[in-house]
Amino acid sequence: MSRRKKIYEGKAKVLYEGPEPGTLIQYFKDDATAFNAEKHAIIEGKGVLNNRISEFIMTNLNAIGVPTHFIRRLNMREQLIREVEIIPLEVVVRNIAAGSISKRLGIPEGELLPRSIVEFYFKNDGLGDPIVAEEHITAFNWATTQEIDDIMALALRINDYLSGLFAGVGIRLVDFKLEFGRLYEGDMVRTVLADEVSPDSCRLWDARTNNKLDKDRFRQDLGGVSEAYAEVAQRLGIFKDPRSAFVEG
Amino acid sequence: MSRRKKIYEGKAKVLYEGPEPGTLIQYFKDDATAFNAEKHAIIEGKGVLNNRISEFIMTNLNAIGVPTHFIRRLNMREQLIREVEIIPLEVVVRNIAAGSISKRLGIPEGELLPRSIVEFYFKNDGLGDPIVAEEHITAFNWATTQEIDDIMALALRINDYLSGLFAGVGIRLVDFKLEFGRLYEGDMVRTVLADEVSPDSCRLWDARTNNKLDKDRFRQDLGGVSEAYAEVAQRLGIFKDPRSAFVEG
Ligand SMILES: Nc1ncnc2c1ncn2[C@@H]1O[C@H](COP(=O)(O)OP(=O)(O)OP(=O)(O)O)[C@@H](O)[C@H]1O
Ligand SMILES: Nc1ncnc2c1ncn2[C@@H]1O[C@H](COP(=O)(O)OP(=O)(O)OP(=O)(O)O)[C@@H](O)[C@H]1O
Ligand SMILES: [Mg+2]
Ligand SMILES: [Mg+2]
Repeated sequence: MSRRKKIYEGKAKVLYEGPEPGTLIQYFKDDATAFNAEKHAIIEGKGVLNNRISEFIMTNLNAIGVPTHFIRRLNMREQLIREVEIIPLEVVVRNIAAGSISKRLGIPEGELLPRSIVEFYFKNDGLGDPIVAEEHITAFNWATTQEIDDIMALALRINDYLSGLFAGVGIRLVDFKLEFGRLYEGDMVRTVLADEVSPDSCRLWDARTNNKLDKDRFRQDLGGVSEAYAEVAQRLGIFKDPRSAFVEG
Repeated sequence: MSRRKKIYEGKAKVLYEGPEPGTLIQYFKDDATAFNAEKHAIIEGKGVLNNRISEFIMTNLNAIGVPTHFIRRLNMREQLIREVEIIPLEVVVRNIAAGSISKRLGIPEGELLPRSIVEFYFKNDGLGDPIVAEEHITAFNWATTQEIDDIMALALRINDYLSGLFAGVGIRLVDFKLEFGRLYEGDMVRTVLADEVSPDSCRLWDARTNNKLDKDRFRQDLGGVSEAYAEVAQRLGIFKDPRSAFVEG
């Protein structure tokens, strides 16, 4: 475990070489960053919680036929995933206005959007992940038209499923960010969900109080970040006692 | 003429009630603004030149079957147009990277784009005309899918025609901004080109020297703004002697 090769260290996760070709180990850190990494902190327990929540969501998505990179959780902070070629887009699905769409288009935060909106951002930290249109994606060959269509369809299915899942536990799915990758299998390529789905990448509001249960607690210095993430995990039934998250296995 | 009703006064033009229902008079001012009106100046003769250049281009586009709002020029600064319901989008067609796309996507100014790119901006000065995707346009009902398709097809035809027109007079058409409107005729609606096409709304570079012959001369304080516009008009053969522009009729 200490001799394995580090492939990539990001802001929130580390990727290690996996046990077999075409696999990777995704390690979840406790690091939190916001505003293009200008703000940084350690949120104790966050990595453990995101590992569990992402495991839970990816497993459920696999079960309804949404292909993902997820293979299985290995331990508290690590999961085994299929290596993919990441499509350089951050795919955001929005149900309720919040964050950048409120600012850019002047829509009051909390306003229900006329319909779910899928947005694409060019995944490039140096440029601050600028929003782009299909025109840019195809012109610069970041993804093919077929891949955009696949991503759109998968993103909307994921939105339907997760909206239901969270509604069932008293949480409104305001918006979320997805990453997709190309999974090469022989001479076939498939578009699959990659990265993570967790309170780091979703806006989750308590349905009754509108209390934020996501990374906005960190962005906006609201405190209680890991408690909110644990609350999400607990409501999803991932474990009865949140403390059990911190027990190996 | 002095008793006619002013419908709208914009930054560069004034709209007056036209002689018949469904018509307007578009008056071209000498005012130049940039950076969302933070910068303002009077460029003597600009309105006269833009009136002539826009007349010339709209007439030629009408002739190849691109529907426009243009009816006829009335005098030095005014043209008769059909009143339309403006679709609240600024439609930008780009052939070479310059301006905001260079900044947003990190593409060096002057680089040939892999293909012509059509961009949509939400026409809203208060928000600084933010770039939007088809998702936003249809979700917020700014235009229908059919209208977007019509606009795309018209924008690309206009780009082909104008690229040729300017190439013929030693000018590279770097990019340009269009506005489209809904023309109601009985119970029919048609999407037509509106507003103006002029060095205020295009980036035009001399093919040999890359000299800017457009509003960037004003934005970047390069001087010689009206001289550059007159050069464009003269190359297009709008008049042999640019001074004749300033003669009534
Ligand atoms: N299945 C996968 N195969 C290959 N790479 C993946 C896979 N899933 C996620 N990744 C990539 O692994 C990295 C995860 O690290 P992390 O999320 O911390 O990065 P980051 O700091 O957000 O930076 P980035 O902008 O690269 O995402 C991301 O670059 C992500 O795109
Ligand atoms: N055929 C038309 N019918 C109705 N309105 C038109 C027509 N053609 C252009 N317009 C509108 O007339 C106005 C022209 O004025 P001008 O270009 O000076 O406005 P502006 O300061 O750029 O502000 P705006 O943001 O409204 O364009 C614009 O609002 C334009 O959309
Ligand atoms: Mg990431
Ligand atoms: Mg205007």
